Amino acid sequence: MSATFSYDALVAFSRSVFTAIGCPEEDAVLATEVLLSADLRGIDSHGIARLSGYVRLWDAQRVKAAPDVRILHETPSTATVDGDSGLGLVVAPKAMQIAIDKAKQCGSGWVSVQHSNHFGIAGYHALMALEHDMIGIAMTNASPLVAPTFSIERLLGTNPIAVAVPAGAEPPFVADLATTTAANGKLEILQRKNGVAPLGWIQDKEGRPVTDPHSLKAGGALLPLGGDREHGSHKGYALGAVVDILSAVLSGANYGPWVPPFPAYVPMPTGMPGKGIGHFFGAMRVDAFRPADEFKQHMDQWIRRFRSAKTAEGYDKVLIPGDPEREMEAVRRADGIPLLGPVVDDLRFLSEKFSIPMPPAADRSQI
Amino acid sequence: MSATFSYDALVAFSRSVFTAIGCPEEDAVLATEVLLSADLRGIDSHGIARLSGYVRLWDAQRVKAAPDVRILHETPSTATVDGDSGLGLVVAPKAMQIAIDKAKQCGSGWVSVQHSNHFGIAGYHALMALEHDMIGIAMTNASPLVAPTFSIERLLGTNPIAVAVPAGAEPPFVADLATTTAANGKLEILQRKNGVAPLGWIQDKEGRPVTDPHSLKAGGALLPLGGDREHGSHKGYALGAVVDILSAVLSGANYGPWVPPFPAYVPMPTGMPGKGIGHFFGAMRVDAFRPADEFKQHMDQWIRRFRSAKTAEGYDKVLIPGDPEREMEAVRRADGIPLLGPVVDDLRFLSEKFSIPMPPAADRSQI
Repeated sequence: MSATFSYDALVAFSRSVFTAIGCPEEDAVLATEVLLSADLRGIDSHGIARLSGYVRLWDAQRVKAAPDVRILHETPSTATVDGDSGLGLVVAPKAMQIAIDKAKQCGSGWVSVQHSNHFGIAGYHALMALEHDMIGIAMTNASPLVAPTFSIERLLGTNPIAVAVPAGAEPPFVADLATTTAANGKLEILQRKNGVAPLGWIQDKEGRPVTDPHSLKAGGALLPLGGDREHGSHKGYALGAVVDILSAVLSGANYGPWVPPFPAYVPMPTGMPGKGIGHFFGAMRVDAFRPADEFKQHMDQWIRRFRSAKTAEGYDKVLIPGDPEREMEAVRRADGIPLLGPVVDDLRFLSEKFSIPMPPAADRSQI
Repeated sequence: MSATFSYDALVAFSRSVFTAIGCPEEDAVLATEVLLSADLRGIDSHGIARLSGYVRLWDAQRVKAAPDVRILHETPSTATVDGDSGLGLVVAPKAMQIAIDKAKQCGSGWVSVQHSNHFGIAGYHALMALEHDMIGIAMTNASPLVAPTFSIERLLGTNPIAVAVPAGAEPPFVADLATTTAANGKLEILQRKNGVAPLGWIQDKEGRPVTDPHSLKAGGALLPLGGDREHGSHKGYALGAVVDILSAVLSGANYGPWVPPFPAYVPMPTGMPGKGIGHFFGAMRVDAFRPADEFKQHMDQWIRRFRSAKTAEGYDKVLIPGDPEREMEAVRRADGIPLLGPVVDDLRFLSEKFSIPMPPAADRSQI
């Protein structure tokens, strides 16, 4: 049965689970913060709903709880990091921190990561840059669900790109987008509802545009941003490809159809050309280009101009990337995080598996 | 009347024009190479068709023929460049060269440019990185034609992103994409033909999706990649916004609705917050991450896997970004560059204005 939980209750539970699989205390804290940032920001598909999935990867010995994350190769502004098969939730913020440290030293830092796993939401890692007055960039490849333009094979993941930009008085600009028309999480919602997907989201196994959300599991594919060639799907495909190349060809991870699957029951691809999945991070000090105060004043002006743009009939206002997620976070910190029945069942499975008490469900009055 | 010209004939003509407005010899050579790379690669809207437009900007004293392009601020891996109101065709490759030089020194180089003008195709500048075994990135903002999701105001340009990646035996991967559903050049073609634009390319002045390509000039707007909210236009908007911010807020150029127009007869916006238009360039040494040979072998594998993907019925093969432009370049170097009547008229105008002989039209047998 679905229920609502306070953020703190889910934090305590998630930390206990990560500790139970052998994560060092600080890694359990970090992985929990990254994981739950998705729930707070309303990206439910990437949050605690995946906790049992991570545990199953650990059960299948595809994830190490205490990895030796290390730099394989570096220059003053770049590094390649070996995630040692750790949780992406831990490997990614460590790699982003390396990018930030390099940016402090020489203006910018760029880190490509091999041998990692799913890293939660890209936005979390990009956001890490903001407190340092840096622009943060994060991307990752992911298991193949997306067919390139003209193809019927799934060769790319939803390969997201996140860019976080500090502002002054205004809240930051935070873009976090899958390079597909629709994120897989949105399709999963339609699958549960037996709903109808807009044309342009998916194709069937013959490559025909279809609206049945179950077509994806019947050999179909998600479509690159644009949907079809006439609407620019070759651009979404190119962007997803760039993410794949920077994350995996540059680092020595697996790319394209060889990216390992998230569900532990799915067999690994054969002939894998690299290690694990790949990420790519960037950090640029704003004052490596112009004084930070000046930059932030202009970002404020940028944000205000766009936010106050005239709208088409039926729309209240033009959104700044990051607005919806920030508003959701305020609501969920106050009112709690609602979880669907199957997610609650997953938490119960983990509770029993590790003898950890279930997080107490809360109604609004209790939070 | 339309006619076909050899590449060399157009090179000679273009150099003479740039020299006639006072460009130093080497800048005239460079500007010509950048400009004509668009014609060679089939992006006719950005090539010699714009030569008279650049001259008109010079006439209006909006472009300097002999600018003092200089670094305003730098760190080991970053720089801000002042284009001194020069031709973007000259400023941009000089700025990209700075990015490449920085990458040689410390792994990567990132350059934001203010006070520039239209820089031709983004792809040219990204491609400069390849001969150094670097990944090249180029982007620029542009005068506002694009409405953010939910808006009826034009606040962004078509703001392209180009990424060039070296391969080994295979030709390089070169993505070069406007962050709109359709580039403005494609719409111009439909306007000339009185054709019908697919839904998702443009909206009218009320923000309604329309198919009449003339709606753009009647107060409408181009749409961000995705077309509408349901198909991910907020992603195209976010990408266009990132380009605007990195190119202009970071450098001190104009952004959003304040980007100066390309046509010299259009008045400058009021209250401009910066100087000229902005670009952003990046170069990353491949061997700052892993040995270059290893990287290139894997890029070859990536390219071959995608190129040989199974296709949907009716399609021959899956394209690798850069394929169509490279194939076009081979054809046009051999067979010449076809120019439409109005473009030939523009060349005649320039020929008379500067007393430069018209380039000889060629039929295939003469090239």
